[in-house]
Amino acid sequence: MADSSAPTRVMMAVNESSLKGYPHPSISCRAAFDWMLSKLVRSNTDGFHLLFLHVQVPDEDGFDDVDSIYASPTDFQSMKQRDKIRGIHLLEYFVNQCHQLGIKCEAWTKQGDPKEVICHEVKRVQPDLLVVGSRGLGPFQRCAPHSN
Amino acid sequence: MADSSAPTRVMMAVNESSLKGYPHPSISCRAAFDWMLSKLVRSNTDGFHLLFLHVQVPDEDGFDDVDSIYASPTDFQSMKQRDKIRGIHLLEYFVNQCHQLGIKCEAWTKQGDPKEVICHEVKRVQPDLLVVGSRGLGPFQRCAPHSN
Repeated sequence: MADSSAPTRVMMAVNESSLKGYPHPSISCRAAFDWMLSKLVRSNTDGFHLLFLHVQVPDEDGFDDVDSIYASPTDFQSMKQRDKIRGIHLLEYFVNQCHQLGIKCEAWTKQGDPKEVICHEVKRVQPDLLVVGSRGLGPFQRCAPHSN
Repeated sequence: MADSSAPTRVMMAVNESSLKGYPHPSISCRAAFDWMLSKLVRSNTDGFHLLFLHVQVPDEDGFDDVDSIYASPTDFQSMKQRDKIRGIHLLEYFVNQCHQLGIKCEAWTKQGDPKEVICHEVKRVQPDLLVVGSRGLGPFQRCAPHSN
């Protein structure tokens, strides 16, 4: 139980609120973040290293964004650009929070199916713990990968 | 992130080694316990309250214990008594470890199907986190209940 050991690396999958034009964390991932701080990190800010992953579903806003008309490849390019900026804003929220609390962190975005990308990134990054919001997944919302 | 708040209550389902006549923790639940200490509790022993649950499957040793002959109800009674003592030895291991480390804990046994009993006890006790060993459950071995 020596805290001289490597910090506990917690990966957290974060997503946006589903409200349009509201590039902020969803209620469930903000709740998961608060839960992690109060129940896992507690006052032990040096003992944890947080890894924020935001998975962007390609074209997820393409069909119901009434403000946009897609008439050329450039339109899609600008949409992708806008999604990218949203993702960065989202991660900025968590990185700012960690910075204020003095917790080391990293954040990045990936494109694809969230479930597949999260599994892929867990294998690649090998965190000690994975935290995800509930999003209707039932009573068990946060899982830790087998690290042994 | 105040550690003046209530400690994080971690429930851990523990089971015996499958080696006969060896009433000790299984390798997987001992690994999960060590993981929890090094990755969650770390040096923050005051911030955690551990809850050990051992689910005993009724008559699980009834068919392959070649040293026993069951000829009367009393024989089964003595077998149950022996299982109970084994369960207590198992919990004693974890309670002793916690005592040495200065971590508050509680431990108890229940009879029944492990999956059902664990779910029931999670609902009843409402821990912040549930830790279980892998036992071939795939890459995700430890899950936390939705506490919100």
